[in-house]
Amino acid sequence: MQHKQERVAVIGAGSWGTALSIVLADNGHEVRLWGHKQAQIDEINEKHTNEKYLPNIILPKNIKGFFSLEEALNEINIIVIAVPTKAIREVIGKIREFQKTPLTIVHVSKGIEPDTLLRISEMIEEEMPKELLKDLIVLSGPSHAEEVSLRHPTTVTVSSKNMVAAEKIQDLFINQHFRVYTNPDLIGVEIGGALKNIIALAAGVSDGIGYGDNAKAALITRGLAEISRLGTKMGANPLTFAGLAGIGDLIVTCTSVHSRNWRAGNLLGKGHSLDDVLNSMGMVVEGVRTTKAAHQLAKKYNVTMPITNALYDVLFNNVKGKDAVDSLMARVKTHEMEDLTNIVDGRTLLEK
Amino acid sequence: MQHKQERVAVIGAGSWGTALSIVLADNGHEVRLWGHKQAQIDEINEKHTNEKYLPNIILPKNIKGFFSLEEALNEINIIVIAVPTKAIREVIGKIREFQKTPLTIVHVSKGIEPDTLLRISEMIEEEMPKELLKDLIVLSGPSHAEEVSLRHPTTVTVSSKNMVAAEKIQDLFINQHFRVYTNPDLIGVEIGGALKNIIALAAGVSDGIGYGDNAKAALITRGLAEISRLGTKMGANPLTFAGLAGIGDLIVTCTSVHSRNWRAGNLLGKGHSLDDVLNSMGMVVEGVRTTKAAHQLAKKYNVTMPITNALYDVLFNNVKGKDAVDSLMARVKTHEMEDLTNIVDGRTLLEK
Repeated sequence: MQHKQERVAVIGAGSWGTALSIVLADNGHEVRLWGHKQAQIDEINEKHTNEKYLPNIILPKNIKGFFSLEEALNEINIIVIAVPTKAIREVIGKIREFQKTPLTIVHVSKGIEPDTLLRISEMIEEEMPKELLKDLIVLSGPSHAEEVSLRHPTTVTVSSKNMVAAEKIQDLFINQHFRVYTNPDLIGVEIGGALKNIIALAAGVSDGIGYGDNAKAALITRGLAEISRLGTKMGANPLTFAGLAGIGDLIVTCTSVHSRNWRAGNLLGKGHSLDDVLNSMGMVVEGVRTTKAAHQLAKKYNVTMPITNALYDVLFNNVKGKDAVDSLMARVKTHEMEDLTNIVDGRTLLEK
Repeated sequence: MQHKQERVAVIGAGSWGTALSIVLADNGHEVRLWGHKQAQIDEINEKHTNEKYLPNIILPKNIKGFFSLEEALNEINIIVIAVPTKAIREVIGKIREFQKTPLTIVHVSKGIEPDTLLRISEMIEEEMPKELLKDLIVLSGPSHAEEVSLRHPTTVTVSSKNMVAAEKIQDLFINQHFRVYTNPDLIGVEIGGALKNIIALAAGVSDGIGYGDNAKAALITRGLAEISRLGTKMGANPLTFAGLAGIGDLIVTCTSVHSRNWRAGNLLGKGHSLDDVLNSMGMVVEGVRTTKAAHQLAKKYNVTMPITNALYDVLFNNVKGKDAVDSLMARVKTHEMEDLTNIVDGRTLLEK
């Protein structure tokens, strides 16, 4: 596939930012990868590696590391923001200070901000002056960075309020291994990506206790139902949760050893404290903050979210993982459709 | 939980029949487990084990092995049929010869008959005279036998044309570890259980090639969409595919090392021939026959089923697994909703 060559800045040199830089570099684009640690940037430029985040991967030569955000964005129209959700406001705040021309921003972070209850695109819109924000696109889906960097087949979804802009980003990223689909449901794509980390934590807890794949499949199935219930109340299209940014991402995050949210839950299930787990991970576990936000959203929108609430109690109220999972499995509801019909207006579907 | 004690015959002493016998025995029922190999029945009665199918598990004493079908069914009102789909007509044919009183039949097999394109309950209705068939119930869901026998938490769904009968079967099986839900959508529950084996074979092929969790998540997501498309055309409720007998069972079958359909696909992906794979498995791989049936159903109902068709070519037309998976990943469609809105009448949902 022939790509029109672009110059793109990727903000955040963690595993996902680096893997996406590889995709862009493979497509012939000039890639500027910004990180906030000088030693890591030197490693990227001198050794063409980023060992801490993507071990044993050699980066293409057309990825250049940048330590100065302003230099990285010099004469740039498109940026990819790949920093933890907690750092997004700060990074946008810094860009705002020097940026003169409008930017197309692609965000690839997965979370919801506690207290404000904003999605990532809403946070970015709040921080970035209108005249500096040309378009805003989310890229999400079942995509472990490690596998993307190995050029294993991967599918993702892009969404935006402006679908023409989303299609341009689709063209920018798509190649033989990295398949990019569009979906006009921005809310659903962002919610699906954010909330799946809660279920991955819960799945990790179940595995950590020593329960098996049957229990995990039940949690994932119920988890999808509660994500869909909340998401549709927030304005998402329920079908999005049946797609790549919904069940696809949920499956990969709950069943893969690569998933740090699953790994954190696994340690919790084995009896470690939240503080110990977070200290030992050394990377951001988005699901912890997202659980807090989703717990607030469930109240705000009056949606039943048993898994989110059970995990909230494990994380913040000292409830034991085993007690939480056991009580989830023993919930009184016995008619499966009672649970499922709440996803959309069940009557409409059932009467078909 | 207090159970009214029943006498139940479980027909088929493979791993699933034996695991369900354990559940019933744990609930205090008198369980008669029928198998067609004398040595295995002797092992069950003398050692209280069934090593070939459930290694390292001691069976409760209230499970008795039977080699004579007629003796096993003497003074019995409820039977559980747990034989491969290929053997169902034969077993029912034998029961028909001596049975005098009506039976409640619970079937737990997952498949569709090639050529006739009948679901399991339809096959049973065809073979069993009306006066001998009191009620017919299907039990399905994400439930590896090995984990059920270890009393790990498991959830399943029961369905029937007669939901009062389904609720009686729910009461028969339900306990602290084994959670049973009801769903009135008999067609959906049977279709979901049958077709997931096709996707599990495809997921195994992808893993066998050496592709990762991203590719597998994409296959599962697309697989769910094509199961839903066919199922709804056949009269199922689309919501069933979002539940335990749909996505739940699909996940567990595609991601667990216990799954024999996944294992068979994995060997195919590594380049072994279908004959070699089937010989080396030593157990029935339901997905192979089901792929043939679903390939016929896709034509009959005029439904697009790219994964089913690709797998059909791998199984029966000598197409290489890698070529099949690569072409699936590179399909031209780029708007995800085009795929998803076909599941139900998309317009209705999208207009909400």
